[in-house]
Amino acid sequence: MTKEEMLEQYQQWRLHASAYQMAINLIEQDKMTIAPVAGNEYRDKRTAILSGELFSIETQPDKKELLENLLKEDLDFETRREIELSYKNMMDTLCMPKQFYVEYMELLSKSYNAWVEAKTSDNYALFEPYLKQLIDYSKKMYSYRNSDEPLYDQMLNDYAPGMKQEQCDAFFNKIKERLVPLIHKVIDAKQLDTSFLYMPYSIEEQRKYAPELLEYLHFDPSWGNIAETEHPFTNGTCVNDCRVTTHYYEDNCIFAIFSTIHEVGHATYAHDVNPKYDGMALSTNMTSDIHESQSRFFENYLGRRKSFWVTNYPKLQAHFPQQLGNVTLDQFVTAINASQPSLIRTEADELTYPLHILVRYEIEKGLFNGTISTDGLNETWKQKYKEYLGIDVPNDKVGILQDVHWANAYFGYFPSYALGSAYGAQFLKAMMKDMDVDEALSSNHFDKCIDWLKQHIHQYGALYTPSQIIEMATGEPFNPDYYCDYLEEKYTKLYNL
Amino acid sequence: MTKEEMLEQYQQWRLHASAYQMAINLIEQDKMTIAPVAGNEYRDKRTAILSGELFSIETQPDKKELLENLLKEDLDFETRREIELSYKNMMDTLCMPKQFYVEYMELLSKSYNAWVEAKTSDNYALFEPYLKQLIDYSKKMYSYRNSDEPLYDQMLNDYAPGMKQEQCDAFFNKIKERLVPLIHKVIDAKQLDTSFLYMPYSIEEQRKYAPELLEYLHFDPSWGNIAETEHPFTNGTCVNDCRVTTHYYEDNCIFAIFSTIHEVGHATYAHDVNPKYDGMALSTNMTSDIHESQSRFFENYLGRRKSFWVTNYPKLQAHFPQQLGNVTLDQFVTAINASQPSLIRTEADELTYPLHILVRYEIEKGLFNGTISTDGLNETWKQKYKEYLGIDVPNDKVGILQDVHWANAYFGYFPSYALGSAYGAQFLKAMMKDMDVDEALSSNHFDKCIDWLKQHIHQYGALYTPSQIIEMATGEPFNPDYYCDYLEEKYTKLYNL
Repeated sequence: MTKEEMLEQYQQWRLHASAYQMAINLIEQDKMTIAPVAGNEYRDKRTAILSGELFSIETQPDKKELLENLLKEDLDFETRREIELSYKNMMDTLCMPKQFYVEYMELLSKSYNAWVEAKTSDNYALFEPYLKQLIDYSKKMYSYRNSDEPLYDQMLNDYAPGMKQEQCDAFFNKIKERLVPLIHKVIDAKQLDTSFLYMPYSIEEQRKYAPELLEYLHFDPSWGNIAETEHPFTNGTCVNDCRVTTHYYEDNCIFAIFSTIHEVGHATYAHDVNPKYDGMALSTNMTSDIHESQSRFFENYLGRRKSFWVTNYPKLQAHFPQQLGNVTLDQFVTAINASQPSLIRTEADELTYPLHILVRYEIEKGLFNGTISTDGLNETWKQKYKEYLGIDVPNDKVGILQDVHWANAYFGYFPSYALGSAYGAQFLKAMMKDMDVDEALSSNHFDKCIDWLKQHIHQYGALYTPSQIIEMATGEPFNPDYYCDYLEEKYTKLYNL
Repeated sequence: MTKEEMLEQYQQWRLHASAYQMAINLIEQDKMTIAPVAGNEYRDKRTAILSGELFSIETQPDKKELLENLLKEDLDFETRREIELSYKNMMDTLCMPKQFYVEYMELLSKSYNAWVEAKTSDNYALFEPYLKQLIDYSKKMYSYRNSDEPLYDQMLNDYAPGMKQEQCDAFFNKIKERLVPLIHKVIDAKQLDTSFLYMPYSIEEQRKYAPELLEYLHFDPSWGNIAETEHPFTNGTCVNDCRVTTHYYEDNCIFAIFSTIHEVGHATYAHDVNPKYDGMALSTNMTSDIHESQSRFFENYLGRRKSFWVTNYPKLQAHFPQQLGNVTLDQFVTAINASQPSLIRTEADELTYPLHILVRYEIEKGLFNGTISTDGLNETWKQKYKEYLGIDVPNDKVGILQDVHWANAYFGYFPSYALGSAYGAQFLKAMMKDMDVDEALSSNHFDKCIDWLKQHIHQYGALYTPSQIIEMATGEPFNPDYYCDYLEEKYTKLYNL
């Protein structure tokens, strides 16, 4: 075969796999949003068949050979990156003995169910044996990869490729040094009024407001839509198809607003990738840290600025005159930026958020280097929350069991959230050099911010590594000081410290 | 292989195929309801891949052998029927040369697009060459089946198995004889007041009323849901998963109500099939005539009775006090049963409906026996509407181009609508012998009617032929007099003829 024929075969293979991936994504999306629940068991049986088919396609032995042959060819930069990513994806699976893989998949399925039951009944003991096994299986899985890198580096690599534990340690140490004292000062400062955010807000009215916010965000119904789920997420199937979900709560207006802005950040990133990467690893292999940097950029660096709310706040007020009619723009913007140590990561404010991740990071490292055991881990959790956030965790439901990640064996994922947040501060600095961000936001030109992100980050998909993207977009390597500076400056001013 | 092993292999094969069918149905459902349109081209490319895979699965040569071997075995009634249906499904496709099949599929796709364009621009000439070709290809397709039956009988057989043109002619002649004079009497009679049905009805309020109607119909959210599309339809993927759609119009309240009741009739039939037939031909091969008999049974034989509205009407009134506050139950029930010849089949009243089908039946027969040409067919259409319904068709958009069926080469389908309606009258007669239908409907026990239908019809799926079902459920063969009697009695009384 010529190189061109091999590349043609490669493209066909990727499109073929992406057809199954689309079906599975849509079935999942449907299940999470609108599918009648009594059909779950019948649909799940069929979904498993399609997943099995996809697995076979992704691991076809002749495709391994095809990739290996292609890697020997003279390829342009883009194509080489595509084939390398694809080859890594395949080998990460193929390196496992089949028997191990099957057992691991079964364990994952059981662990998820155990986590749901443990969380529902607030009983960590139900989940503990599974967590222990998941760690053992994860270690074993990484051992098959036959890499020279230290274990936690390998784990990080799956979500923030190129990031090392050493760099991560330095990052979190800086956070501990600079942010923990700041948080304690904020706790001691005069509390800001946020009461008007936490009142009865009609869900029906929140639903009516949503399209106005989405329009401001340039989230276009022609390529995206919004649905409702217990936990908000973003899903996509192909070019021009990005779905976000949200959850409306009757007792406050801000969860839905900021979770929507967050998910639209993910969706916009996915949507802005060069469409010629459709179905290729260059679009499917986008990394968690950069993804979170974009969602949290939308949510915090843009969504919590006063300029963002100049045109949006009057619209929100119009929907809720009783709750917000007498609240000024400044009062509202102050309230949405207030900081208060809390139990739930996904609801944490911008300042305390990285401390939630720090807790998980320290625990994860300990679990994998053997200095922390799953036994009594719920108590370790409580101690760390007391230490870093100064709060008492009343039960495991809102403690160690709050997040699903570990039940899915996403070990090494959590740092991406904090790293993504930190990259964001650096991106903001660079963006501000190039354009007047506040002018764009306040004049209803959110699209100008999107254009900057598209040009510097989004369009590339997985073409570059996170560190390459950061350097290209900001002109220097990742520097967590930008993040600490940003938070320090912001909260010192906000709380008159 | 033993018989048991063969049956096991058969079951696996069916489940495998049904996984693909589910994916394709869900992708289609998503596309018609909520999918972002700019993604269509990318999704369609993937859907085509999955359809191709399904085609390969459905026509696997070893499965043909498997079916042939199974048919030689000693099978119980249920299993034999299942295998026979499956074998017919396979042979109806396999009999076609591959090249012909591919061309035919391409023609279908082009014809659909041409129909959309022709309808949009009200230009029959754009569709005419495709219609001509579709007829030629259909003829050729049936010729490959190598059946001894006359062509139109074969066509009927795909939608109302066992029905012959001779029987169909007798049926439509009876309709012509008995109903055309009745319709003309109704036209000359004093018109009934329906003005309050055709006023501004807020779509938002109609959406709020819908769940109350669905609850009455025992359409349970655990196994079904409702969405909105341009044209209402029913879709399903497996046991406990039946989706209906509707369309709300601002200028009247009844289109959405009766189209919803109609689609819930389809969905309930599908839902009530014995769950052990999941994924089998015994559930997927349900016939169009019986399906329409159930949807139209819900819509007309139950949904237009006064007893149906005893508890429903006050609820509807509560949503629309301005429009219906001063309209009595009797006035409302009279209005929803009024008859008035009209242009659009799907909006036709119960009495004039079969005449719309008669027009299509006569044209279809003529097109296939060569006595009618596609050339100038729009004029033929207009003449027939004038003759049977006494109305002038102002353009082809609301004339020959109104329905998509012919663009999909669903020739022989239309009679199912009228036959289904006629079966319904016979089912109603039988049901009334067994139970007090009005007592059930007026006491909020629609489920009692469903139970009767489930016991006599629904549970069997495709286990019996339509004529067997009719005989089993009513104790006698299909007799169109019940239909004509029902309409005659009803409309003579309603219009004081």
